[in-house]
Amino acid sequence: MVIYPVVSDELNKSQLLGKKFVRTDTKVDYTFIEYGPASIESVYDAEMAAPFIVRKVEEAEKNGYDAVVISCMMDPGVKASKEAVNIPVVGAREASYAIASVLGDKVSTVYPEGIPVLNLEDDPEKTFRVLRENAQKVLEEGAQVLILGCTGLTGMASRLQKEIGVPVLEPEGCALKIAETLVDLGVAQSKVAYPKPAKKKRVLPDF
Amino acid sequence: MVIYPVVSDELNKSQLLGKKFVRTDTKVDYTFIEYGPASIESVYDAEMAAPFIVRKVEEAEKNGYDAVVISCMMDPGVKASKEAVNIPVVGAREASYAIASVLGDKVSTVYPEGIPVLNLEDDPEKTFRVLRENAQKVLEEGAQVLILGCTGLTGMASRLQKEIGVPVLEPEGCALKIAETLVDLGVAQSKVAYPKPAKKKRVLPDF
Amino acid sequence: MVIYPVVSDELNKSQLLGKKFVRTDTKVDYTFIEYGPASIESVYDAEMAAPFIVRKVEEAEKNGYDAVVISCMMDPGVKASKEAVNIPVVGAREASYAIASVLGDKVSTVYPEGIPVLNLEDDPEKTFRVLRENAQKVLEEGAQVLILGCTGLTGMASRLQKEIGVPVLEPEGCALKIAETLVDLGVAQSKVAYPKPAKKKRVLPDF
Amino acid sequence: MVIYPVVSDELNKSQLLGKKFVRTDTKVDYTFIEYGPASIESVYDAEMAAPFIVRKVEEAEKNGYDAVVISCMMDPGVKASKEAVNIPVVGAREASYAIASVLGDKVSTVYPEGIPVLNLEDDPEKTFRVLRENAQKVLEEGAQVLILGCTGLTGMASRLQKEIGVPVLEPEGCALKIAETLVDLGVAQSKVAYPKPAKKKRVLPDF
Amino acid sequence: MVIYPVVSDELNKSQLLGKKFVRTDTKVDYTFIEYGPASIESVYDAEMAAPFIVRKVEEAEKNGYDAVVISCMMDPGVKASKEAVNIPVVGAREASYAIASVLGDKVSTVYPEGIPVLNLEDDPEKTFRVLRENAQKVLEEGAQVLILGCTGLTGMASRLQKEIGVPVLEPEGCALKIAETLVDLGVAQSKVAYPKPAKKKRVLPDF
Amino acid sequence: MVIYPVVSDELNKSQLLGKKFVRTDTKVDYTFIEYGPASIESVYDAEMAAPFIVRKVEEAEKNGYDAVVISCMMDPGVKASKEAVNIPVVGAREASYAIASVLGDKVSTVYPEGIPVLNLEDDPEKTFRVLRENAQKVLEEGAQVLILGCTGLTGMASRLQKEIGVPVLEPEGCALKIAETLVDLGVAQSKVAYPKPAKKKRVLPDF
Repeated sequence: MVIYPVVSDELNKSQLLGKKFVRTDTKVDYTFIEYGPASIESVYDAEMAAPFIVRKVEEAEKNGYDAVVISCMMDPGVKASKEAVNIPVVGAREASYAIASVLGDKVSTVYPEGIPVLNLEDDPEKTFRVLRENAQKVLEEGAQVLILGCTGLTGMASRLQKEIGVPVLEPEGCALKIAETLVDLGVAQSKVAYPKPAKKKRVLPDF
Repeated sequence: MVIYPVVSDELNKSQLLGKKFVRTDTKVDYTFIEYGPASIESVYDAEMAAPFIVRKVEEAEKNGYDAVVISCMMDPGVKASKEAVNIPVVGAREASYAIASVLGDKVSTVYPEGIPVLNLEDDPEKTFRVLRENAQKVLEEGAQVLILGCTGLTGMASRLQKEIGVPVLEPEGCALKIAETLVDLGVAQSKVAYPKPAKKKRVLPDF
Repeated sequence: MVIYPVVSDELNKSQLLGKKFVRTDTKVDYTFIEYGPASIESVYDAEMAAPFIVRKVEEAEKNGYDAVVISCMMDPGVKASKEAVNIPVVGAREASYAIASVLGDKVSTVYPEGIPVLNLEDDPEKTFRVLRENAQKVLEEGAQVLILGCTGLTGMASRLQKEIGVPVLEPEGCALKIAETLVDLGVAQSKVAYPKPAKKKRVLPDF
Repeated sequence: MVIYPVVSDELNKSQLLGKKFVRTDTKVDYTFIEYGPASIESVYDAEMAAPFIVRKVEEAEKNGYDAVVISCMMDPGVKASKEAVNIPVVGAREASYAIASVLGDKVSTVYPEGIPVLNLEDDPEKTFRVLRENAQKVLEEGAQVLILGCTGLTGMASRLQKEIGVPVLEPEGCALKIAETLVDLGVAQSKVAYPKPAKKKRVLPDF
Repeated sequence: MVIYPVVSDELNKSQLLGKKFVRTDTKVDYTFIEYGPASIESVYDAEMAAPFIVRKVEEAEKNGYDAVVISCMMDPGVKASKEAVNIPVVGAREASYAIASVLGDKVSTVYPEGIPVLNLEDDPEKTFRVLRENAQKVLEEGAQVLILGCTGLTGMASRLQKEIGVPVLEPEGCALKIAETLVDLGVAQSKVAYPKPAKKKRVLPDF
Repeated sequence: MVIYPVVSDELNKSQLLGKKFVRTDTKVDYTFIEYGPASIESVYDAEMAAPFIVRKVEEAEKNGYDAVVISCMMDPGVKASKEAVNIPVVGAREASYAIASVLGDKVSTVYPEGIPVLNLEDDPEKTFRVLRENAQKVLEEGAQVLILGCTGLTGMASRLQKEIGVPVLEPEGCALKIAETLVDLGVAQSKVAYPKPAKKKRVLPDF
């Protein structure tokens, strides 16, 4: 189960592209959260979304999913979710950095500065142009491997990689592959690292 | 404004003691959150409480408070709150470590292992005895300065310090003093470090 | 192509088990090196094996393999091989640590101390017993995630995990899954990080 | 007791300003050292001043002061003084960094490059202009919080903060507030971290 | 014994200069390796040379040398050689950084970018000019101490030091002095850090 | 010039032994400081001695010495002395760690706990026995290389090394060899790292 940790009505085009990296017999479902921000661009957004993400993760476990991907480069609610359930929970950021670690030592995220997340698809060519300019800049500063700075950029890695000549990672693709890997290896987050929260009174508004 | 980031009906005894460290002309008010867990003992608890803490911080700013203290050693919602408002926001954990840094190099938190937060006041003598045993253990491992591991232990620092011979800090007291200090110095969190979240659609349940 | 960086005549039982983690449409071949040590247990062994490993990696690229796994927890010849070719090269150690990073913060390798690599299969029950004792020890010291310390232990992770209750990773399985992932994502090691060695006179003995 | 670790005849204007941050019922006295350099701008200066600073600190303890501030951004003699006495000793540098830690992650000191300490008050407007230029530079390099680089700049923080938009700390003010805090909390430097020096023959020139 | 870890027919001029730093009663012999690259400019080169370097080190111990220097700034085969023998083995890189540590905190290596190792002596004036330009650049970035980036530059340190005003170290000279020092102090690499490799089957091509 | 940074009347036996490590044509003179403590066992002692050490270093430069060794494992006054003069200044601690860096990764200092510096020679056998006990303890904790914790222990390294089987360094010997090395290489501390202190009024008591 892939959770987009934002409130939204429809998957955008880039989100549909994330799926292409998984193998044919892996079933991928998508869901949004019911409450929270329309995009995540601050700790404020991430913490506003977290309780509603965790709820979706708990539901996914109850519904029998093998693993959960939280598709956002800020990894909102990822630690709390790892505590909450026993199935593997994978954040896009941590997965991208894990894979990048075998490709080179100096890893940077690239984002098209100045374009808010909700406007990334308004003018895809402009988005790509600004993204490439930012990529060029971090390469000059010594980057060896790039990670797209937002799962909303999914689909641009391959073209960017061709034009700039270093590996470029799609965070959602990375998270899906690591989730598959954990399931295949039969492992999930350590319950010593992420212990199950104690039962206690917790009062939450209806949602 | 001191925010206890838990749902509760009444200030317990230790909470009333936190106030003794401030100067006489500093007015301290206390509040709980309406929704969230009854105690914070996991990242899960901290993230469940965060949106409701941030709301209280925003209200405090609107109501003219000079500074806000979030009284919990896990600093729940502290970063998001620093983004949300312009008045100083101080977490008990960060304040305690800031003050400890001038007292010694090796700083440890001490908690009476095995006693849940909600039971700390059931048998105060037992709580203190277990706390002292844990303190002794971290001292043998090299600690030079101790911080009480929970703001629910407020009131025990002075006695513990006398018995074990190294400085022991009360986290809520530290946070109150650092809040006073920031107000006196005329500074608050850097808005370059904690930028104001952009305005956007954010859907939250009624609370 | 999986390269066992040792001289040997036959795949042992544990080596055949590594394959079970890959998906059904991934073809895995195995090879040994012609020259080098019979096992790798020191930097000396690793550096003696390296030129012969790199040669095998170069051959694999020429023969059209999509990726190479070097199956040893000391990652011998991995950096040189990444420079030498354009297809992904993955070491068992780096792959295991990459995957472990999403499972917990404190990661340890476990090896059955006192049993040389070449004797690991002499008495599998004894090997497992000693392995579990060492695992217990590192858990008491704070480990949250374990990695088997040698690809010669492949097949023991699942049982160890059941008995000690934290995730245990098989290094060769991790390397195979990361290799699959890199191929699926269309990325390989950064040529800025691992530039192609310049052409120059290199005199090597016949091999 | 505030110790200016330099030989001088009179408090300059900026020094009188440091006092404004303390509360009304805190009594602050000032003293210089009898021997040492006229300003502290090198390790050489700091080590030349140290024995004479420590002597002043020992006197302050004997005279019943509650705490001592050593007012210099190089923290000369601070560690030795913490060993020598039981009352809290606070250096301006350590106090500034402690407070800065709750305001942002990237903290820089700013000094008006090219103007020696003894000339800071020759042309205050020029001093401020050069200070602001240097502040602008470190902001462009990523600083989020600034600390004035010398206690001789006291009085300029508030204006600089207004003009550049990030918090600016006065080191002497920070040290005074941390000293007040330690007294209010009833703690002083850990004697495990700063043990009392053993009694032994120490031959010093008359001073 | 100084080992140049490259295949070559003759010592070049700069290599003869390394000797000038040792005292008159220290006897220095030189040798090349029989197999390996003509120069070392990549991990690939270093790992191709390593087995043949280690062999030379083992021979030197058998022939009664007191210590071995491996004269290359990539320290190829240094760790394996330290395991292999009991006499001190010193790499040029580690020795240079050891000595640099007492001269300043910010240490950089300088190499005349764009000139391959095998062409360093084609036009010594050009080599020096490019070296100085690179030195100037790293000084502007904050370097306080420089190390020549290749033992093939031996002889240029003194002139460069005079022209740029910070200490410049010759790596081969540093390695020779550290080797002398270890012999004089009666110490060699720790066998706990670099244990003797276990005896086992090791199949190597004839060389 | 070797400076013992303590007030004393006579060189003790161990001090005479330091000399044995230098080559025959190196002339070594010794001096004490006129003022300061009888031994250095705290930061307090180190800072009380510093101005008088620096004075001795300045005199050594005026008297034409090629280099200065400050013979104490706390490196008192070493940084200030490096600023003060142009000839190489070497501290026993920094020199020992520099040499240890080529012998192993885990380096510990060993001191016979419980015996004050001034009593080290009261009962040399007891001192050695306690030293060896402490050495054994740090070896069990993982140390690979040992450094004697006080230059007053000079002469005990060789015997300790034989009995415990890892390299043991004499700090004064290390400092003398590094000083020789710097002179032979024609380098001294970087004046960018240790700039000459500006001329200014400095008032010191007569000494």
